[in-house]
Order: sequence, then C-alpha cells, then structure tokens
Amino acid sequence: MTPYGLLVQRFDRHYLLRSSADVLEWDAQAMMPDGGGDLRAAQLGTLRVLAHEAIATPDMAERLAAAEAAPPEDGWERANLAAMRRAWVHTAAVPSDLVEAHARAASACELAWRAARRGDDFASLLPHLEHVVKLTRQVGEAKGAMMGLSVYDALADEHEPGAREALLTPLFARLERELPPLVDSIVAAQARTSRAPELVGPFPVARQAALGRRVAERMGFDFTRGRLDVSAHPFCGGAAEDVRMTTRYDERDFLPSILGVIHETGHALYEMGLPRAWVRQPVGRAAGMGLHESQSLLMEMQAARSPEFLGYLAGVAAEELGVELSRETLVRNALGVERSLIRVDADEATYPLHVIVRFTLERALLSGDLPVGELPGAFRDAMERVVGIRPPNDRDGCLQDVHWPSGAFGYFPSYTIGAIAAAQLFAIALEKHPMIPSELTRGELGTLREFAREHVHQHGSRFDTNAILERATGRGLDVDALLAHLRRRYLGA
Amino acid sequence: MTPYGLLVQRFDRHYLLRSSADVLEWDAQAMMPDGGGDLRAAQLGTLRVLAHEAIATPDMAERLAAAEAAPPEDGWERANLAAMRRAWVHTAAVPSDLVEAHARAASACELAWRAARRGDDFASLLPHLEHVVKLTRQVGEAKGAMMGLSVYDALADEHEPGAREALLTPLFARLERELPPLVDSIVAAQARTSRAPELVGPFPVARQAALGRRVAERMGFDFTRGRLDVSAHPFCGGAAEDVRMTTRYDERDFLPSILGVIHETGHALYEMGLPRAWVRQPVGRAAGMGLHESQSLLMEMQAARSPEFLGYLAGVAAEELGVELSRETLVRNALGVERSLIRVDADEATYPLHVIVRFTLERALLSGDLPVGELPGAFRDAMERVVGIRPPNDRDGCLQDVHWPSGAFGYFPSYTIGAIAAAQLFAIALEKHPMIPSELTRGELGTLREFAREHVHQHGSRFDTNAILERATGRGLDVDALLAHLRRRYLGA
Repeated sequence: MTPYGLLVQRFDRHYLLRSSADVLEWDAQAMMPDGGGDLRAAQLGTLRVLAHEAIATPDMAERLAAAEAAPPEDGWERANLAAMRRAWVHTAAVPSDLVEAHARAASACELAWRAARRGDDFASLLPHLEHVVKLTRQVGEAKGAMMGLSVYDALADEHEPGAREALLTPLFARLERELPPLVDSIVAAQARTSRAPELVGPFPVARQAALGRRVAERMGFDFTRGRLDVSAHPFCGGAAEDVRMTTRYDERDFLPSILGVIHETGHALYEMGLPRAWVRQPVGRAAGMGLHESQSLLMEMQAARSPEFLGYLAGVAAEELGVELSRETLVRNALGVERSLIRVDADEATYPLHVIVRFTLERALLSGDLPVGELPGAFRDAMERVVGIRPPNDRDGCLQDVHWPSGAFGYFPSYTIGAIAAAQLFAIALEKHPMIPSELTRGELGTLREFAREHVHQHGSRFDTNAILERATGRGLDVDALLAHLRRRYLGA
Repeated sequence: MTPYGLLVQRFDRHYLLRSSADVLEWDAQAMMPDGGGDLRAAQLGTLRVLAHEAIATPDMAERLAAAEAAPPEDGWERANLAAMRRAWVHTAAVPSDLVEAHARAASACELAWRAARRGDDFASLLPHLEHVVKLTRQVGEAKGAMMGLSVYDALADEHEPGAREALLTPLFARLERELPPLVDSIVAAQARTSRAPELVGPFPVARQAALGRRVAERMGFDFTRGRLDVSAHPFCGGAAEDVRMTTRYDERDFLPSILGVIHETGHALYEMGLPRAWVRQPVGRAAGMGLHESQSLLMEMQAARSPEFLGYLAGVAAEELGVELSRETLVRNALGVERSLIRVDADEATYPLHVIVRFTLERALLSGDLPVGELPGAFRDAMERVVGIRPPNDRDGCLQDVHWPSGAFGYFPSYTIGAIAAAQLFAIALEKHPMIPSELTRGELGTLREFAREHVHQHGSRFDTNAILERATGRGLDVDALLAHLRRRYLGA
C-alpha cells in the first residue's frame, strides 16, 4: 500500500466513526428520551475518542510526511492529502483524554442547559459552563500551540478554515458601524406603512409538516437520502448520503417553520451536492461552517424571501393549510425588521449585530477577561449597546443559545460569514442567470441550485472558503454585497 | 488496577460500542431512508469489529485467569467475572479466521435465502446452507472444547446459558406427546361455537398508535427511558436506559399490533428492570433469550390474553378507536387455535410443536444424520408428524425462517423455554398475589410487574435461567404449568 493509500484507509475509518456519532447526535436531539442522556454522553465520548484515535496515532506526522514526499498525481488526491493534514493538525494536537473530557462535559452541560433555559436559571448552568469554558480553552491552547495561532483563532479555524480574528474584526466593525443607521432607516420606513396583516391560525402541525415536505422536495431535497423531523433547535445533521434535517412547529404561525425548513434545505442541498466519490474523505466535506451557512442563507434569505418566491409560497401555503394568503401578506410578515431579543428569530438586517455580541463575549470568556459568572450581565449590556435592546431575563439573554453549553466557541461568526457570502453568491448568480427571478415565482430553484452546485458544492474542500468565493465571484469575503442587498430590499435603494 | 478492574473497563467499552451499534440498527429499521443503506452497513461493520476487539485481545485468556485466581469478594462482582468468561467464550475465544468465515458464509446465505424464499427454490440455497452448517459445526466444536460441551449444547448456550439438550429433550418430548391431543380437544371445542365476530375497520394508524402508547404506559413502560415506533419487523432494541421498541400497523385489524406492543413491552420491562448499577457489564444483562421471551409472553400470553385483561382492552380500544367492542369479541379473536404452517403466526397451543420440529432437525443437521439436501422432505415429514399439517411447498416449509441461513442454531428452543417459564411465573404470581386477576380487569399490571422485577429482572445474569426459575417458583423448567394453563384457558379444565 502507498503511504497515501494508508492515510485514505485511516480517514475512511475516521469518517465511519464520526458519522456514526453524528447519527447518535441527531437521535439525541430529535428522538432520544431524556433518560438516555447519560448513556448517550458516554457513547458519544467513546465514538469521538475512537474517531480521534483513527487519525491521531503517534506515527501520523511521519505518515503524512511520507505521503507528501511522493504526492499523488491526481489533483483531487493531492487536495485530499492537504485536507488530511489540516484535519490532523486540528485533532492530533489535542490529547485524547482532553477530547473525551470535553465531550462528556459538553454533553452534561447541554442537558443542564435545557433545564436552565426552561427555568430561567443561569445559576444551575454555571458550574457546567465554567467546566466547558475551561476545557474548551485547553483545547484551543493545544491547537493554537501547534498552529501558531491564538486560542480563539485556533478554535474558529476548526469551524471555518482561515477564519481569523484579524480578518473578521474589520468586516464586523463595518457592519457594527453601518447596520444600526440602516436599521433605523428601515424601521422608520416600515413604521410609515400599516402593520403587517396578521396570519390567522391555528395552523395544524400535520399540515405544516406536509407543506414543509412539499417545499423541500420542490427545492431538490432528496427524501431517499434524508429525513425531516422535529427538534427544539432546528439543524441539519447526518451525512451526505443520509441527511437529517429538523424543524419545529408553532400552531399559531407557520412562517418561521417553513422558512426554517427552507434554510435547512439549503444546508442539505450542500451536503447532497458534495462530490460523491469523496464524501468519506476530508476533501469531500463542506469547506467550512460559514460557507455551509451561505448555502442555507442563499436559499432562505436571498431566494425564498424575495417577493418572487414569496408569491409562490403564498400559493402553496394557502393550498396546504387551507387558508387565504396573498403574496403581499407574506412579504410584509417575512420581511419585518426590528430590534429583538432572540438571535434565531432575528431578521437579516439585525442578525449580524447579534453575532457581533457573541463574537465579543466569547473571546472575553476564553481569555478570562469575562468570568463565566458575569456572563448574564455582560450579555445584557452588550445586547443593549450593539443590538439596541436589553434582555429582561437570562432565558431571552445568555441562555438562548446551545452553542456555548455544547462547547462550540468560535462558531458564531460563521452565521455572518454565511450572510456575507450568500449575498455575494446571489448577486453573481443573478448577473449570470437573469431568468432566476422569474423561476422563483414558480418556486423553481433549479438554476440557482445548479449554480451553487457548480461553484460551491462540487468543490467539497478542494479550495478554502475565500478561494471558492474568489473563483465564483471574483472577490473574497466582502460586505458590500450584503449591505447593497439590504438597502435594495428594504429601502428600494 | 486489579485484574478484575481491567476487565470491567474493557467490557464497559464493549458495551458502549455495542449499544451504539444497537441504536444505529434501530435507526436503520425505524428511521433511515433507503439511500443510507451502504453507509450504515459500513458504520455497523466498523462498530461491531471494534466492540469485538475490545474483549478479544490476545491476552484475554490470561487476564481472565488472573482475575479468577484472585476473585472479587462481592457476590455481584464474582457473578460478573463468570459472565465475562461466558461472554468471552461466545464472542471472542473462537479463532478469528473461523469467526470471519462463518460471518461471511452466513451473510451470503441470508442473502441467498431471501431470493430462495421468494422463488420457493431450496436448490439455490443448498450450497450456501451446507457451508453454513459445516462452519457452524466447527464453531460449536471450538466452543464445546473450551466448555466441555457437545456441539449443540455449546451453540445453544450462547442464546440461553445452561440450555442443554439433556434438559430440553424430556420437556419437549412431553409437549410433543401431550399437546396434539390437547390441540384436538381445543379445535373441536372451538368448532362447536360460532365463528369469532369480525373486527370491522378501518382502524386509522394514528389512533392505533395512541392506543398502543396508552396501553404500554399503563403497563409501566417508562417513556422517559424509551420509545415506541414503527418498523417492518417489530422488535425491542436499544439499551436498558433507552429502550427502543417497534410495532407495525394494519388498518384492517388492530389486534396484532396492540398485542405486539404488549409483547414488546414485556421485553422492554425486563430491560428497564435490569440492575441499574450493572447495566453496562455482562452480569447486568438479561440472563438469556428464553428468559427474555418469558417476560414478553408473561405479559402478552399470560396476562394480556386473559379474559380479565381483554375486558379492559376492549374498553380502551373502543375509546381510542371510536368503535364498539365487547370483551367477548376480543376473547374470540385473540384466542383462536388451529394447526397452521407459519411459526410466527402460530397460537400458543401449537407454537411449541413448530419449535420441536426445528429442535429435532437442527440437531440432525449439525450431527450430520440429516444431510442438508434432505432438509425439505424431512421438514415436511416432521411438520406433518408433529404439528399435524404438511407444507405444500418449501416457502411455507423449511424456507420460512431466517435463523438457520443466518447461522443461528440452538436459538429456536428459546421461544418454548420462554413459554414454559412464563406459565410457571404467572402461576406462582397468582398463587402469591390473588388480587392479580381483578387488577387485570382494570389493566393494572403493577403487582405482576413488581413480581417479575423482584424475581427475574433485578437478577440480571447473576444466576442462569433455571436457577432464576427455581428461586422464583421452587422448580426449574417444568411443562406442568404451561399444560395446565392451556387446559384451563381453552377447555375450562
């Protein structure tokens, strides 16, 4: 066997163990009864350690060097070898007992978080979260030492290759400066019109589920290779061959759920569009979580919230839900802008501000500048300062997100990297394919989906996010397109 | 670490990997889209190999001997050590090239069996089945040599610790002698009454699901530690902490589904009642497949098909399904007896005869007395002689069961061990707790469940099946109670 062939075998085993854990993770969110939590935490701990060990044997440095000394001829194989090195650098730096401790702490903390959020009881979460922050810091230090990066950059790099505080800070600073006055203008403009007509429910869950399934299918979600279920915090998990996406339903309002399904379908289409021959190898994975988010936002924010698509949606929603609905009603309900408390419910104009709050605080938590016990107050202050609204409690404050309790630090910027990239990709797709808006009026996403498949999905991790954007649009990450999109959509400017 | 402590660690890892695979197996049956099949097969292969390796290291013989040389003081720990040796002999002590050859042959044979059954074509199965019988015999010889047992006893012991040909033969001989005239009397008695009134559907799946959930809950199934879902072949899987049971629905008839749910709930209650401190170690598992079956049959055959419980069931089924239903209707539909071809559809009076046919033939196959090529004729002859009905073809004859093609020999007796033990346990429970029948009229299973928990569940594998029965009833396996139960239920005698 060639040195490269040996690595392929190890990464295949890594993938099988990791994807097994991903199914158990999905199950924990969508299916598992509460009583299974302890066992599941132990199962996930074991599987993640074994996945880690599959590519963290003591001889890996030597094996990688041997393969790199005689690199494969094929471009995909060479790119795979590079992706292997990055995956290895990210995992080999971390001792397996730390990986296991981190996974166990995060599982327990996530469970505690569910109860803490229900009871608006940060105190009960505090010891768990302190433990998770401490172990996450240790993980970041271990990785950072190996890559010559700060703790934060080392953690962020895992979610988005090449994401750096230094790259993000100016982009986010410009948004922090330019969005608030833009939001003011939008809010003022929307205040001058009458209130959005109310959507009159109840909308039975079974009918909403049928609507979600119909729209996802129309968008190209392949139900022979995936499922749509319910979980408290919607996500898209599973594997490229077997995508598990979730949503949640509110009988009083169907719009968040259907737009959520469209969002997750955007993620799912990325997974389903990854290069089939490579899905079990590092080069066959999505390039990063930010680019992943760009695919969900391309579908949800750019395409589905366009007046054209909302016209189609009003028609099928009226049919499935058995109510009367006009395009105008959906447009007014789907495009309201206001300063609000909950990130996941925020509109696209204020959303980046929520991310900036978290980007600021998570760096302070990791550096130790912000003791975990002071998070609730710091969160309220930052919300007031950046978003312009103060949470009255912790449930709607620092307890609203699962990310930190589950051990994910450096992840939040991905959402805004995604929003920025989605705006860039949609702008160039429209330029190249002027028929897209008329297709959207019929709910057709074929041209846009094929554009995304050709310029994003099929590359897997062959290039990094910035390079993929450069190849697709001629520019790396740049907030111009996002700001122009917001001005055009909300101010007609 | 003590030699025993090291073993505990290895078996804990074995359990976490095995139970992870069990969740993925449940998911494959109940949730997974078809497209996930290839990935899932690879995931399960990897997890099962790793689980095997956790307790199949070359030093295990030595490690076990070391622990046995200084056995733990605690009774549970000592019993755990004995259970470890047994688990090791059955899963890891056979030479791995033989295990692998056997697994490969069984996989190929099972695949061939599906086609052979569809086409009623035993000839196409023959070479595969010959190969499986040969390798299974070698496995039995290898295990037998280690345990001082015959080939058949060594194979049967894997499914039921302590099950021996010498123990089963007289029990089964008596059933073979006494059941046929008893079945004649029952069939004659039932022929004298009018046909059972038809259950008039359709019975919508959602309502049947609500009924199943309600009855399972009433029986004591803890939905915070388990789920009830749908699969093509109902089973009870998952783990003691997180039991996953399934059923299937037929809109034309709700009875098979609700009785199936009750059956699986019996299995589930056993799992949920296992000693919490030991569930991840061999001594914390169910004692054997026969004893497991006794718990499902205790609930389904002994308790739920009693006239008392059927009265309760008629009431709640009428409520949930929105139909009129009398106890008498359910009694007549749930208790029909007839000689039929298919084991899985057989009633409790004729079922043991189906098992005896297989017990007889599988020993003859393993000893070589019955050449595999002569199985079809021998199966028909045995069915005619023992069950009293001759299969017109092989599809409904020797091709109906997956057990032999999949390499499971010595498993069939478990079904009848379960029926015998269930009758013994129910008889003694009634003797000790005369209020049980009146509780059953209200669907209350608390007293019976606590009896089973105290005398069966909480022991785990601390004692073998026969010893558990002796402690609970004062006698080992004994067919008196089963025969008395059948005479009383069906002949009022």
